[in-house]
Amino acid sequence: MSEHHAPDRFDLETEVLVVGYGCAGAAAAFEAATAGAEVLVLEKAGGAGGSSALSGGEIYLGGGTPIQRACGFEDDPEQMAAFLRAALGPGSDEAKLQRYCADSVDHFHWLRARGVPFQPTLWDAPTWVPPTDDGLMWLGENSWPFTGLATPAPRGHRPAAADFGGRMLMELLVAAAESAGAAAQFDTSVTSLVLAEDGSVIGVRARRYGTEFAIRARRGVVLTTGGFVDNDAMLAAHAPRLLGHTKVSGGGDDGSGIRMAQAIGAAVRHMATGQVGISLIPGFAARGMVVNGRGQRFVTEDTYPGRIGQAALFRQDLEVWVILDEQGYEEVPEPQRWGVRPTHVAETAEELGDLLGLPPGSLAATLARYNEFASAGTDPDFHKAARWLRPLTPPLAAIDIRAGVRPPGQAAARRGTGASVFTLGGLHTTPDGEVLDLGGDPIPGLYAAGRAASGLHGEGYISGTSLGDGTYFGRLAGTRAAHRFRSSGLPATADDDSA
Amino acid sequence: MSEHHAPDRFDLETEVLVVGYGCAGAAAAFEAATAGAEVLVLEKAGGAGGSSALSGGEIYLGGGTPIQRACGFEDDPEQMAAFLRAALGPGSDEAKLQRYCADSVDHFHWLRARGVPFQPTLWDAPTWVPPTDDGLMWLGENSWPFTGLATPAPRGHRPAAADFGGRMLMELLVAAAESAGAAAQFDTSVTSLVLAEDGSVIGVRARRYGTEFAIRARRGVVLTTGGFVDNDAMLAAHAPRLLGHTKVSGGGDDGSGIRMAQAIGAAVRHMATGQVGISLIPGFAARGMVVNGRGQRFVTEDTYPGRIGQAALFRQDLEVWVILDEQGYEEVPEPQRWGVRPTHVAETAEELGDLLGLPPGSLAATLARYNEFASAGTDPDFHKAARWLRPLTPPLAAIDIRAGVRPPGQAAARRGTGASVFTLGGLHTTPDGEVLDLGGDPIPGLYAAGRAASGLHGEGYISGTSLGDGTYFGRLAGTRAAHRFRSSGLPATADDDSA
Repeated sequence: MSEHHAPDRFDLETEVLVVGYGCAGAAAAFEAATAGAEVLVLEKAGGAGGSSALSGGEIYLGGGTPIQRACGFEDDPEQMAAFLRAALGPGSDEAKLQRYCADSVDHFHWLRARGVPFQPTLWDAPTWVPPTDDGLMWLGENSWPFTGLATPAPRGHRPAAADFGGRMLMELLVAAAESAGAAAQFDTSVTSLVLAEDGSVIGVRARRYGTEFAIRARRGVVLTTGGFVDNDAMLAAHAPRLLGHTKVSGGGDDGSGIRMAQAIGAAVRHMATGQVGISLIPGFAARGMVVNGRGQRFVTEDTYPGRIGQAALFRQDLEVWVILDEQGYEEVPEPQRWGVRPTHVAETAEELGDLLGLPPGSLAATLARYNEFASAGTDPDFHKAARWLRPLTPPLAAIDIRAGVRPPGQAAARRGTGASVFTLGGLHTTPDGEVLDLGGDPIPGLYAAGRAASGLHGEGYISGTSLGDGTYFGRLAGTRAAHRFRSSGLPATADDDSA
Repeated sequence: MSEHHAPDRFDLETEVLVVGYGCAGAAAAFEAATAGAEVLVLEKAGGAGGSSALSGGEIYLGGGTPIQRACGFEDDPEQMAAFLRAALGPGSDEAKLQRYCADSVDHFHWLRARGVPFQPTLWDAPTWVPPTDDGLMWLGENSWPFTGLATPAPRGHRPAAADFGGRMLMELLVAAAESAGAAAQFDTSVTSLVLAEDGSVIGVRARRYGTEFAIRARRGVVLTTGGFVDNDAMLAAHAPRLLGHTKVSGGGDDGSGIRMAQAIGAAVRHMATGQVGISLIPGFAARGMVVNGRGQRFVTEDTYPGRIGQAALFRQDLEVWVILDEQGYEEVPEPQRWGVRPTHVAETAEELGDLLGLPPGSLAATLARYNEFASAGTDPDFHKAARWLRPLTPPLAAIDIRAGVRPPGQAAARRGTGASVFTLGGLHTTPDGEVLDLGGDPIPGLYAAGRAASGLHGEGYISGTSLGDGTYFGRLAGTRAAHRFRSSGLPATADDDSA
């Protein structure tokens, strides 16, 4: 383990060293610098942004934000927690969830203070990314079974940007970190953590253009290196279901931070879990039926589309079609179709089922049942909201979700795969970002946030919880690292005794 | 990390130290002793056996064993591998699978040479445990979709014992290890691994009746400590879906070996995976329909019941019922019902669906479709074999699988839970049992087998593959450890250079 031994002398020195300049790294750097610490961010890419900059920009916030109130919605932290507990479980992190929800309005104001703009208007239909600058969207809160578990309120907060808002969000957060005094070095890969004799983390080894060097971090190292969807060996070991699909990442989610910390004894959690964005147009799904390889419905079609995606991949092996009629297709404005057209069309449900290779008569039976209840405005099977219920009239179309979708602004390579995935598992941390070892004790001097850590999530996922928990817990980790060895200003933590 | 430092002197010394005396430990101890090494087995319980001794005793063997041939079945390693690849995947270990199947007839003879008796007769219906001493049983090979992927042959080999054969198997394997010269100490818990300066494993620290001591292992340490179903913290971190169900274990599957190895840098694989035995009587399921909370069928009812169990827990959240008629119930002889009686009875499918809280008309529609095709002897939805297809005639009964089952010989506590689970994930090993570190390199001196290791399995499971891969890869690990530092007798491995 010689790479963990301290060198005779360090080449550089700082107080808080942040590894990775995505949303969690920027938030950690800002808070650490604002708390008065000397901060250096190391990023292996040529610039800041990471996978965060390529995202839609949604941030999951609630509890009664000004945007929610302006749109006419009451909310409180308990209802927000009740929804997230159900949507992100089983296995969601209750301590993190409580903190996240209790502080959500504060975190909204923190983002606003960093310049992130949110319009006080609601996009009121299921979608991945609204084609407007509406600042608020539903992410499954108004769909079954969540309607029975928590008072529905939309909590998807969107920076006012055309289409994908992640780039703007990252520009603002990086500018904020820089203004607060955080320095950065790009094209710099961290290769290992450096330990003191007592096992605490005191720095890193890194490489830049082939030159190796060591950096001392007097207060702590914050790992914000992202998940591991770009590392096929880690996927094979921990999440084989995610192999072979489109990777939602800027290309740098190689799990390096997770592995560096594991190499000094850190524990991980929930490494098999992942977000699954399937290539369905939520407006089509809500207006039609989603069926499996037996022609059966299996999910509420008007829910958060990532929930449909997880069910499609993990429960139906991606053998999934969206069935709709001409009216349903036409009701979705052309720009919101993202170029998706039916893969199969037929005059009757029987014919369509045969075209899809479904068991004889199965799709016709499913359609007959759906139409019978839709005529009455009810859906006793999956409780789709009455707003989306209407009997489907032949001719019918099917969209094979494995045919792929190319979202606006995305490269052509995005077409041709049925699922777009990223990982949710990572380092076991406290809400304050302390990385825990296999015995459950904090590793002194080591912090993590963002997708390098196991965040709020158990098995489930909701859009906006990655930028949300990345920025929120990134802030806490940066703050905690900056205050290490200080006698005041923060509640005591397990390793403050060593101060 | 001081617990990993070598003591000034060791209290005991041996060549190969085996930790845990279940099937993998016994097999490793036998082979290491037979290879001429001094062997000591440490077991924390008061006697040998572990969870293996409480199992049904099935061992998954094939490729053309004498029992298969006596029962009239052709088989070869390629067909066996094709079945296991499909049944244990995604994520099954291809290298292990190839070795396991290629050597399966040899392994059969090894077991026979240890005295394990197999009767050359077939039990020819789906079941967990045949009520006879038949030596061969199907474990899904003759069910869809496997019938289209590999030539069906039964491969569940059963020691000739009334009901559960695990106890007899373990008595024979322990006797064999003892005869070969392996010593054992019971009531002895291993607490940590001891490392040399170069990071190789040279022994362990252990505790017996409150006394701590250190044992040197001159050739290697073999971890055969079992899985982690008894460790709720590990389940919460890695396999939260398994929490709260009946633990299939002798009580000692606390993950201690996995954690000890992780603490010195070992990698793990597939920690979220688990076997799920749901409390259905396979004879009932094959003769009826298995439906979910929407009244839909979702699985082939005459397949290996553990496959139904995984589908029920992981894909249907355990909201599952077996639907059958009086003839189906009566056809299963009373002793094979394990005391299970219908939880709900009704004159019609509509009434039964209402009793179960299923959506209106859903069960009736499913039954009508099932009966229509069953009359013609086909099942286009789930391809149940014609042998089990017969229209179900009201009155109908339902069995709520959450009501629980008490298998013969099991304690009363087994009743009252819907699923019985154990873990499949564990240490990343080569087929020869070398434990790999996070970088993929063998940790010199450390070996593992059985459920402490990630074996053949990806997500799937088939009965007999735990005793099967535990004994087979236990043998390889024991052999490899015994030959460490020898210049001949085995192919070179990564750490032989240090000899």
